[in-house]
Formats: sequence, C-alpha cells, structure tokens
Amino acid sequence: MENLWKKNFIDIEPYVAGEQPKSDDIIKLNANENPYPPSPAVMKAIEQFGAEGLRMYPSMDAAPLRQAVAERCGALNGVSLSRENVFIGNGSDDVLATAFRAFFNSDKPILFPDVTYSFYPVWCELLKIPYRTKPVDERFEINASDYAEPNGGVVIPNPNAPTSIGRGLDFVREILELNRDCIVIIDEAYVDFGGESAIPLLSEYGNLLVTQTFSKSRSMAGMRIGMAFGSPELITMLDAVKDSYNSYPMDKLAIVTGIASVNDEEYFRETLAKVISTRDRTAAAMRGMGFNVAESSTNFLFAQHEKLGAKEIFGFLRERGIYVRFWNKPRINNRLRITVGTDEQMDKMLAALKELTAEP
Amino acid sequence: MENLWKKNFIDIEPYVAGEQPKSDDIIKLNANENPYPPSPAVMKAIEQFGAEGLRMYPSMDAAPLRQAVAERCGALNGVSLSRENVFIGNGSDDVLATAFRAFFNSDKPILFPDVTYSFYPVWCELLKIPYRTKPVDERFEINASDYAEPNGGVVIPNPNAPTSIGRGLDFVREILELNRDCIVIIDEAYVDFGGESAIPLLSEYGNLLVTQTFSKSRSMAGMRIGMAFGSPELITMLDAVKDSYNSYPMDKLAIVTGIASVNDEEYFRETLAKVISTRDRTAAAMRGMGFNVAESSTNFLFAQHEKLGAKEIFGFLRERGIYVRFWNKPRINNRLRITVGTDEQMDKMLAALKELTAEP
Repeated sequence: MENLWKKNFIDIEPYVAGEQPKSDDIIKLNANENPYPPSPAVMKAIEQFGAEGLRMYPSMDAAPLRQAVAERCGALNGVSLSRENVFIGNGSDDVLATAFRAFFNSDKPILFPDVTYSFYPVWCELLKIPYRTKPVDERFEINASDYAEPNGGVVIPNPNAPTSIGRGLDFVREILELNRDCIVIIDEAYVDFGGESAIPLLSEYGNLLVTQTFSKSRSMAGMRIGMAFGSPELITMLDAVKDSYNSYPMDKLAIVTGIASVNDEEYFRETLAKVISTRDRTAAAMRGMGFNVAESSTNFLFAQHEKLGAKEIFGFLRERGIYVRFWNKPRINNRLRITVGTDEQMDKMLAALKELTAEP
Repeated sequence: MENLWKKNFIDIEPYVAGEQPKSDDIIKLNANENPYPPSPAVMKAIEQFGAEGLRMYPSMDAAPLRQAVAERCGALNGVSLSRENVFIGNGSDDVLATAFRAFFNSDKPILFPDVTYSFYPVWCELLKIPYRTKPVDERFEINASDYAEPNGGVVIPNPNAPTSIGRGLDFVREILELNRDCIVIIDEAYVDFGGESAIPLLSEYGNLLVTQTFSKSRSMAGMRIGMAFGSPELITMLDAVKDSYNSYPMDKLAIVTGIASVNDEEYFRETLAKVISTRDRTAAAMRGMGFNVAESSTNFLFAQHEKLGAKEIFGFLRERGIYVRFWNKPRINNRLRITVGTDEQMDKMLAALKELTAEP
C-alpha cells in the first residue's frame, strides 16, 4: 500500500548532526562552549529550588528574568533599560527564529553575510523568507555599503562567526543609517568576549533588535536562555509570535538560574578575563607557528596555516583527541574554528600544533 | 517621522493573557494544574544535578529522555516502543506546533472540533494552514463521521478539553479508518486521568501521531516537557522541523527531571488515583446541587447549573478566592471548567457552591 499520508509533509531536508565525541578524554573545542562552569550562584539557585513549584505553569513572559536582564545588561552598557525592552527565549536560536517570523514578512530579500551563522538561511527556508547573501571581503570583513540595496530586513552578526571579527559602533550605525525602513538585527552571541554592543543605540533606532545569549559568556549552553533587546514595540511583536506558538518556552529552573547568573557580575567578569587572556596568548603562539589568525573578539579563533591545509590539521588534532571545527565549504575550507578552552587545554593543542608544524 | 519599518511585521493579534491571581490564599482551579508536587525522584534529580555540566550544550535530541519515555509509556500501554517512536519538545504546545508545521501542508483544510483546545486555530493562523471546525453534538461529543470529508489532516483531542469527555479506541479507530491518507493527531494531554490511549494503534497506522505531556498527570507544568509517539518516519520529520528551528529545545534539567519522573511509576499511579477519586466525589456532590457535570476522563470538570448562569457562579467563586475558568464564547458560555484540586480545596469550593445554590 502506498503511504499517501506522506504527501503533505513539509519539504525540508532532515538535519545531519555533527560528530559528538563520546569519551571524556576528548578536548572539545568544536562548539564554542565556555570552559568554565556557570556562576556558583547558579548552583545555589538549583540547590535551593523548590521542586513542588514545578506542578504549576511558569510565568508566561519570564518577567523576573526579563527584569534582571534589563537592569544588568543595561548597566553593563551604560544605559537604562526596562523590562519592556527585553524578550527572553529558549536559547538565542529560538529568539532569532521568532524575530525572523515577526519581522521578515516582505517580498524583498533579507540580507546577511555569506560567511556567517549557518542557521540564518535555514530559518529563511523553513519560514519561506527570501534572502540574499552579501560576500564578506578577502579579510572576512563585512562591508556596510553592501547593505544599501532595497531589502526586507538585515541581519548582522557582530562579532561575526566563524570569522571571530568584531566591528565598532560606527560600523553598526552605518548599517542602521542605510536601513531606517526595515528591521536590523544585530546578533551579539559573542559580544561579551571583546565586541562592542549596539545596546546604547537602541534609544536612537526603534527598528534595531539586538540578540544575545547565556550559552557562551555565561557558561549556560545547557540551560537554553537567549534574549533580545529592542523598543517596546518590537518586543511586543516578539511576544505576539511567541504567544501564538508556545506560550511558556522558559521553564522555572531556567528563570531562576538565569537570574542568578546575570546578577553575579563579578564572576562573569572574571571568567571573561580568563577566556580573553587564554585566547590572546593562544593566538600569539599560533601566529608564531605560521598561522594566520583573525583578530578575535569572541571565544574562538579563526585560523589558517601558511602551508598546511585545514583538513589535514583537523585530522591530525582529532587523532590526538582534540576536536576543533572544520567546514568543507567554499571560502572557509582552509580555515579552522578553534574554541578557547582552559590554559591547560590550549597548551595541549599548541603542543600538538608544534609537533605538526615543526620543520623536519 | 513615519516608522516604515513596521510594514513587514507579521499580521497577528497580540495575545491578552488571562488573569493570574497574585495572592497565595487563592484556590487556583483555572489552569488544570495538578494539585500534587512532582515525584520525590524529581526533587532528588534536581538536588543531585551537577551545575558544572550546564556549560555544555544538552543532547540535541534529548535521547536519554526519549529512551525512558519509550520504555515506560510503551509498558503502560502494553506495547513495545523504541526511542525512534518518540519525539520530545518544550511542552506539548511546542510538540503540536512542530507537528502542524511538519504534517499540515495541504491546500485542503485540516479538521478539528469547534469546542476544543484554543491553540489549534491559533497555530493554523500563524502557520497559514487552512482549517475547518466540526461542531461537537449537543452532548459535546465528537462524531467520527464528521471527519470523512476530504482534508489536509485531522486533530482529535481525546479526552477533549474543555469538555472533559474521553472516547474509546473504537472511536479513534473509526477516525483513522476514515483518514488513511493524511496525518491524524490524537492529542492526549489528559489521557492519564481515565482516557484510553491510542498508543496501541501505532503499529497499525503509520499516519497516527499521539501527543502527551508532563504538565498535567506528572505535575511538571513548570518544567515544559511534551512528547509525541509515532512511526519512525513521522518522528524523523518532527526532528527535521525542530532542527531547522531550534536544535536544543530541552535543557539539561528538563531531561534529567523528565527521566526521574517517568521512572517513578508508583508515585504516578498514586497521584492519579487521588485526583480521580477527588474528581468523582466532587462531580457527584455538584450533581446533587443541580449541576449537569459531563462524565470526566480528565483532571477537570465541565459543568452547567440547571438554574444559575455560569458567569454568575464564576463571579461568586472568584469573590471567595476560588478561581475557575469561564469563557464568554458561543456554545460554552453557560459552562464552567473546574480543575480538580486537593480534597480540601474541593470541599471549600463545594461549600461555596452550596451557599450559592441553597434554596432561600
């Protein structure tokens, strides 16, 4: 019998997941995870959590977490934000997908760089949003003038991934000035590691949405918390989409651990400083071995060797239990993306690279 | 200056949230929450959770939770299920919305009852799925023969909400026999309280998807866990949609608490027995006061008084700190939906109803 019920299936390709190492001995530098644990305040919040409360639904809008994020992230950027400026979602993928649906409903294509986060085109396919990619230049930099053409919206990751390159607010302002009549999303997943946030521009541009995440700088990838900052009008639209899809994306433990994390600024700054210091030291050592390493404003390095191919280096490291990221894709197939781990992990990686690159 | 950037906003109405009582003295019988806490094993899982692990991403497919759900829910229904038969999402709203997107891509309308879960038409609007509602009869029962016309899919809640009425497997089989060429979703959010699950029919019907939730019978509304059971082919499509939208909807604590909950069958059965016993006693007492109460297979009662209007009763209870659910909607605007609480809560509600309905 034919299975006619397949005829109305959505037309998308099933995703093939990347390799996840099973062994604990692996040095995992392939997912841009933070090598340090979340704030001790997060552990305390979990220990003190009253599980009885799980019988009831969480706050629909995760209001206490929005409030804490507004206060703390406002202060970090020297501006005053209120709860009405903050949207919270189940990881920044959920936040970005919600924003794509809420704001990108034009017949004109949305614009984003060709070398960037791989989910932008995936959401466009799923949500039937036309899009056009704009090539980054030979230094992997985004040119603001490429975003001057008529469009249905703009998405700029800043710092960009996998390039690790961050741009200043002049650049972001240029993009915004060229695009007063559509929504501009600045995806700041990595901004805390040395980028410059566009949050201070929110008061000037009602069409600006800034997205961030707890997954990288706050060591909370396992908890799924992402946020967006914008004018109350934009946040209301994000809530309207959320409430038409899944009213309660944030569970009670995500809310309390998120609050605990964002309120511990001292630990946040300490962790960032450690990652940044390890990153810069590692980049310098790699340059000394013949690597071209992009100036990173993130928790990863984007590197190419002057002689050795990326695929070869990837395989060499992998045999030694060190997992980094390599894409067999045009433009970046001779580059590696290496997450910044602990000093000890980086020393092991550098030792392996030294072995590989040493002249015979 | 005109804000032209609003022109590409999605065209949906912002949701207006229902009233949430602030006081702890309130008897909250308006959200079908379980009056009992989750299994003690859930509390233990939280206490023993190692927060360090949060720095890393969770399992993309929540595989250990799928495995536990397959084993336990298979056994509860006397069939053998594997991990490939189970999809897990961020609450059953997330699961259902994902299924609507994956399976309802026809030009023909999908069919569901007129009196049912209010989110079905909301997802259709959001996802641009044509739909047609089929009136339940004067006893609020769904007629299988109404679902014989050409369609793009069928959604049947069983037991139905807010009617509380559950139907047997003969009824579900009739629906399935009439719809061999489209996907049939049986939404079993309330099935554990006395309904009959369609899970044993999965081996016969590759086009059947059964959805359930941890929010009601497992007292985990605050944790956001829902699941779907189906043929591996259907589950693969759900995963394809998930992976194109938000790869990691389940955080690490949701996974470990879900496993702890589903593995504690004794507590699960005890809690269900208490809720069912309280429900049946409450329904009998209400019938003695002149209420027509539908035969409930859920954790709530759907009731109409022979003389007093539902709005009046709703207001009377509310003044006494007892919150139940009333909809000012055609067909059900003289009915109340009352969640089954503890015996003590129900006794307070019954005392209030007695006061209201007593002859002067």
